[in-house]
Amino acid sequence: MAKNVLIIGAGGVAQVVAHKLAQNAGEFGKLHIASRTVSKAEKIITSIRDKGHQVEFAAHPLDAMDAGAVAALIRRIDAHIVINVGSAFVNMTVLQGCIDAGAAYIDTAIHEDPAKVCETPPWYGNYEWKRREAVEKAGITAILGAGFDPGVVNAYARLAEDEYFDKVESIDIVDINAGSHGRWFATNFDPEINFREFTGTVYSWQGGEWRQNKMFEVGREWDLPVVGKRTAYLSGHDEVHSLSARYKDADVRFWMGFGEHYINVFTVLQNLGLLSEQPVKTAEGLEVVPLKLVKAVLPDPASLAPDYEGKTCIGDLVKGTQNGQPGEVFIYNVADHKDAYNEVGSQGISYTAGVPPVAAAILVARGTWDVKRMANVEDLPARPFLELLGDLGLPTRVIDATGDHPI
Amino acid sequence: MAKNVLIIGAGGVAQVVAHKLAQNAGEFGKLHIASRTVSKAEKIITSIRDKGHQVEFAAHPLDAMDAGAVAALIRRIDAHIVINVGSAFVNMTVLQGCIDAGAAYIDTAIHEDPAKVCETPPWYGNYEWKRREAVEKAGITAILGAGFDPGVVNAYARLAEDEYFDKVESIDIVDINAGSHGRWFATNFDPEINFREFTGTVYSWQGGEWRQNKMFEVGREWDLPVVGKRTAYLSGHDEVHSLSARYKDADVRFWMGFGEHYINVFTVLQNLGLLSEQPVKTAEGLEVVPLKLVKAVLPDPASLAPDYEGKTCIGDLVKGTQNGQPGEVFIYNVADHKDAYNEVGSQGISYTAGVPPVAAAILVARGTWDVKRMANVEDLPARPFLELLGDLGLPTRVIDATGDHPI
Repeated sequence: MAKNVLIIGAGGVAQVVAHKLAQNAGEFGKLHIASRTVSKAEKIITSIRDKGHQVEFAAHPLDAMDAGAVAALIRRIDAHIVINVGSAFVNMTVLQGCIDAGAAYIDTAIHEDPAKVCETPPWYGNYEWKRREAVEKAGITAILGAGFDPGVVNAYARLAEDEYFDKVESIDIVDINAGSHGRWFATNFDPEINFREFTGTVYSWQGGEWRQNKMFEVGREWDLPVVGKRTAYLSGHDEVHSLSARYKDADVRFWMGFGEHYINVFTVLQNLGLLSEQPVKTAEGLEVVPLKLVKAVLPDPASLAPDYEGKTCIGDLVKGTQNGQPGEVFIYNVADHKDAYNEVGSQGISYTAGVPPVAAAILVARGTWDVKRMANVEDLPARPFLELLGDLGLPTRVIDATGDHPI
Repeated sequence: MAKNVLIIGAGGVAQVVAHKLAQNAGEFGKLHIASRTVSKAEKIITSIRDKGHQVEFAAHPLDAMDAGAVAALIRRIDAHIVINVGSAFVNMTVLQGCIDAGAAYIDTAIHEDPAKVCETPPWYGNYEWKRREAVEKAGITAILGAGFDPGVVNAYARLAEDEYFDKVESIDIVDINAGSHGRWFATNFDPEINFREFTGTVYSWQGGEWRQNKMFEVGREWDLPVVGKRTAYLSGHDEVHSLSARYKDADVRFWMGFGEHYINVFTVLQNLGLLSEQPVKTAEGLEVVPLKLVKAVLPDPASLAPDYEGKTCIGDLVKGTQNGQPGEVFIYNVADHKDAYNEVGSQGISYTAGVPPVAAAILVARGTWDVKRMANVEDLPARPFLELLGDLGLPTRVIDATGDHPI
């Protein structure tokens, strides 16, 4: 039986998910999209119609913070797979709705509590993993962090484990956006989520324990395919928290590329207290969360797409040993902002985040990944996922002892 | 009869005014201070008691945006002189209260409309000067802009006219704060007023007409006494608007010194739209004026005083001819942040702004400046004002053909 899919969220990533679902409509039953603001969901459907897709696609209003409302919608439209690309604050309620209504759950980023910045590790352990038993009991599949990073980079680590090393010693994930949006300043994702990633403590897993650093404290120059020499900084990121559980004896680090301009703006905003999620009171007595105002004055990330040019390079440098012989492999993807816009009307950052959950949904629909339990991407077979991603527009390449080649 | 004085406002400048009035209590009758938040006024009185002053000083709650309330308070306490050092938004209502109740009016900065940034010139012509006739009819004295800049620098220009030149050709006012408050970033005045000075068009009077520039567009290195070589930028400022009326044939420019760090923070905030006085709506539907939030997160300027070190140098470079012979004179003051704090508990910027209106009040009380009309400082005899300021802690020095010496 063809499986109906429900997208939750209607931002830049949801736009990519919707287009990719429509392009691959033969894999699924009916398609649905739900958002707090239903007009945003309808706009996405219109953009799909503009590309000539005739697939059945319906928009629904939904408060995704209400697990009961999520379950009710799933039941009403008989959704079998939910792709959650709403705000990071709704994961736990959407997951609960899936558990209650018996639908598969796929997300692309970790749950966040609006009132907290930077949880203590392990982040998954604080929220999603506490529902493992409930997911298994309900007999549903829940795939966590199936975007690009986390997501594809977790599969890269798993590929290195499966095909290169019997012992993984270090996993360095590097995320470089060498594109340019032409604005004075903008974030590529929801500014609220984007800045929250960097305002707290940077956690990395090294020497079998959590290390703490400040943002922009540890920088390193990388020389990567296509994008060349770029400085990236040790950053906290979702996948460090799941990969460190599977690869306890390896060092797991995440490196995010930043230009000097971004760092300067970030530093000014942070040092002035404008990135705080705690409300401050103005002289007039109005309570304002500074970060929410900063979000309101910055460009909508979705608006950047038409002018975005250049490429991204995201990959894993994995070191390890095979039969006692040390070695290393760099597994990566290069994506192009303009190509992404021409294909689905979104910039490359949204594209790399939005295509993988569709690949995951296809694998769940086909049964390959329909594991009836909660899994992070590295817990699942990597090759079917990466090969499917190649077909969907995100090809994987490898630099190993034999050179630079496709997987 | 000894004249009762009412201070309106209870910020850093009001603190200086209150202390200087208490130090010179013999010149006046009873002293009063009024503020929207009466506890702030009471705190200032407490700081005066702590310095051992036994003078009669009373605090009153007042909404200075209500001209009727201002007039009622003036009548109730029989105030003869009002020193308005409240927010720049209350000038017109306080002036109206003085006109209605028959008290002398002294302020230190131009009126501002909360909804506008950077009026078209001449600023005084848009508000205060429209009340000239009403002031004359009421038979009261109204002295506008009697702080340091505007204020003392206007008297410097008048001194150059009176004692150096029969024809003034240019007046360049230079304001350098070479002090350090030790914070990552702070403004020396109310951030709302401070930033509003620099977000709009920079007006200067050159070649007999208004010239427009952007902030930080025109910079120039100055080499000044005590503070040395400093870069200052062409800025809009109150006194350019009154001096250009008296010195129509001269160029009148205002130069404000800024360090690179200040300019960087300002540029980030402005380019992001965070210095706007127009409300923006957050995703949650809350209407917020960005500038008011920025004010709320920045340090209270009054809190900087204890750690403030270093000196300010503010002066006028005046060029002109005397009997056809060209010449120039630099008339200036150097003030010390630490000395100001030790004397009155405020930093040097508040000190230089707060002492001059007290000198003006003394001259009104003595009759020297009790002119029964509206006047800017350059319309009044300069020497009595500058000599009195020397006694009150703000000595004037001159660099002319004979060297660097006191006036």
